[in-house]
Amino acid sequence: MIVGAGLAGLPIAWELLRRGATVHVVDRGRPGQGTSRVAAGMLAPVTEVEPDDPIHLELGQLARERWPGFVDDLRDATGHAIAIRTHGTLAVARDRDEAEALDRFRGICDRFGLPVERLMPSAARKREPALAPTLRLALEIPDDAAVDPRTVTAALADAVVAAGGTIETDCEVRGLVLAGGRAVGVERADGSAIRGGAVVIAGGAESSRFAGIPEHARVPVRPVKGQLLVLRDPSGPGMVERVLRFGPGYLVPRDDGRYVLGATTEERGFDRTVTAWAVHDLLRDGAELVPGVLDLELVETLVGWRPTSPDGLPVVGPAHDVERLWWATGHHRNGVLFASITGALLADGLTAERTLPARYAAIDPRAVVDPRRFSSVMVGPDGAGRPTGEHPSRPPTDPGAGAREEDHER
Amino acid sequence: MIVGAGLAGLPIAWELLRRGATVHVVDRGRPGQGTSRVAAGMLAPVTEVEPDDPIHLELGQLARERWPGFVDDLRDATGHAIAIRTHGTLAVARDRDEAEALDRFRGICDRFGLPVERLMPSAARKREPALAPTLRLALEIPDDAAVDPRTVTAALADAVVAAGGTIETDCEVRGLVLAGGRAVGVERADGSAIRGGAVVIAGGAESSRFAGIPEHARVPVRPVKGQLLVLRDPSGPGMVERVLRFGPGYLVPRDDGRYVLGATTEERGFDRTVTAWAVHDLLRDGAELVPGVLDLELVETLVGWRPTSPDGLPVVGPAHDVERLWWATGHHRNGVLFASITGALLADGLTAERTLPARYAAIDPRAVVDPRRFSSVMVGPDGAGRPTGEHPSRPPTDPGAGAREEDHER
Repeated sequence: MIVGAGLAGLPIAWELLRRGATVHVVDRGRPGQGTSRVAAGMLAPVTEVEPDDPIHLELGQLARERWPGFVDDLRDATGHAIAIRTHGTLAVARDRDEAEALDRFRGICDRFGLPVERLMPSAARKREPALAPTLRLALEIPDDAAVDPRTVTAALADAVVAAGGTIETDCEVRGLVLAGGRAVGVERADGSAIRGGAVVIAGGAESSRFAGIPEHARVPVRPVKGQLLVLRDPSGPGMVERVLRFGPGYLVPRDDGRYVLGATTEERGFDRTVTAWAVHDLLRDGAELVPGVLDLELVETLVGWRPTSPDGLPVVGPAHDVERLWWATGHHRNGVLFASITGALLADGLTAERTLPARYAAIDPRAVVDPRRFSSVMVGPDGAGRPTGEHPSRPPTDPGAGAREEDHER
Repeated sequence: MIVGAGLAGLPIAWELLRRGATVHVVDRGRPGQGTSRVAAGMLAPVTEVEPDDPIHLELGQLARERWPGFVDDLRDATGHAIAIRTHGTLAVARDRDEAEALDRFRGICDRFGLPVERLMPSAARKREPALAPTLRLALEIPDDAAVDPRTVTAALADAVVAAGGTIETDCEVRGLVLAGGRAVGVERADGSAIRGGAVVIAGGAESSRFAGIPEHARVPVRPVKGQLLVLRDPSGPGMVERVLRFGPGYLVPRDDGRYVLGATTEERGFDRTVTAWAVHDLLRDGAELVPGVLDLELVETLVGWRPTSPDGLPVVGPAHDVERLWWATGHHRNGVLFASITGALLADGLTAERTLPARYAAIDPRAVVDPRRFSSVMVGPDGAGRPTGEHPSRPPTDPGAGAREEDHER
């Protein structure tokens, strides 16, 4: 059984069903209505995952490569046609400091053989005429794409049901049920139990909040709050075609004339409030880049909790020293990107198969995301992870990665 | 019967019930969920009504004076205790132009004997420490007050029911039913009819949109779109105590730590969209005045249609040449202020009584708001009024008013 019907839980459910398992998913609301609904949907292993972190980069590239097949499989299973927007990404600089940062970024991309193209303002504005004339420099990253995560969760929920799985909605889970040190199910808020041969917790940033999980098995995911706006062009799509990245922000076009303008990155615990400063700053920064942003409708103000681990990498695999308990969380800013591999990462472990390629340098994807790498890290009552020492099960570090600790303290 | 359970229809219903009539109110939604819900709630005959317009000013002052009694009556009838915030208003200038405008405004107030106090920035900031240091000048208007319109409509709806009236909710009215040139009822969207001895249309900016109203009897109210934000201080009330006015905007504190930040004034027809520029500009302007605005939560983005007549004055009274049809609309930016007299204005005509004082200069309030003053004005299909000539039934103009036509073209 799986707790959480989002972009972690649903792909796992579907993958396990396709391997012949019986799967029951419970969610406190409806599928895809948690953080998955808030995600901007970038499939951006280069711009989003920070290419000076080779482990993260390669995991992201693996996920990116699997998206077309993932979408094909979903279409075959459900009839849902999910559009991957492959217009690429334009990272733009608004001033000299940002231009220098872009050039550093380009150097890293060159080193890793990632295709990028440096564009002067006039060339960038030829490709995206809505960009402000004050633009200083741009980089085109052609391989980064985007999807609408809401269409993905809708398709996944249908795929799970079509494959014989069950999704129990509006079901608040109070805690884990253990028997003899093994996970045997979960308890609903009304006290009733749901039994299962294994329990996968895919509850996003709240995954470690459930009662009944032994302290040593908890994973140190914390909520990194993000605020986003959904804007809409009443005249339809076309104002901007590429994903635009700038400083800390982005503008992600959808096929229907909507745009996602994000995002803040806040260490505020489990705080759900939309704040005036965030809305103001997002609109100000977005309009500085694309003045036409101010002509759009504001249709949604969103808050999400990125589930973030101390090293910024996903936490997918078996729990430390609790049999039959599995984790699928920690996807930080990349829950949509990783949705194409989260199912296989978890299912490969649970079914003792090996479907993910091992061709990625010295990196075994399953080892990279193994929750047990944090087994000596305690979880505080506020959900924040506090490293208490070395990580004994840390995957081997790529020698070219430089100072990884600092890189991950973001 | 009354169409519209807002801050026009409900006071009329209650007043007529208190005079012994049988009253049925229909509303397309629930009471007070239209424009009344969006109103900031200022009881501001001086700052809001523009004191160089003596007719408007005196009507506004009459309404302001009646608010304490109105609230007492509502409390006696329903137990609802409505708090009138009597902390006054501080009109502030952020630059030299605004400071000069404030001084002109002060001169007008002095001429009409309206109490105002000129404050240098340090004195203003002593009274409202949250004001930005960049403040240039302020005027305190002690008599302008504010209420939360949502508490007022809730109390009024209870008062109507307690007095024996009926409120039919979620009832879309398609049009007026006439018989022999008289209004005899309305038709629901499902085709069924509601009969009544008289029909009062209190449908806000949409009042003239109902089918079946003879062209000559329609009133030229148009929607003047306003966008507002509701902010909330999670630490409770107290950041700002007075209503703050600045240029085109205002910040209205509520007793529970909420603040209404408004408002745009847009000629956009019946457009309901929240726009990025409005939200951005409201927050930017509000934060320029009170930097702490950006620390607040953004809890609502609101759009309302001010029901606006060509002269900016309410339209309350009998329709031109259609017996038993009455109008109660056109309250523009002052629907909350006028709620204390709208009931009496309409009921005095309908019941041929005279409860409103006539002591206001040469002004008979009922003549001022008489819908028949527009009987030669046509209504366009977009709801915009186009004057087609002189207003034959215009009330006498106060000789001190100056160029009234221009004053009202706002």
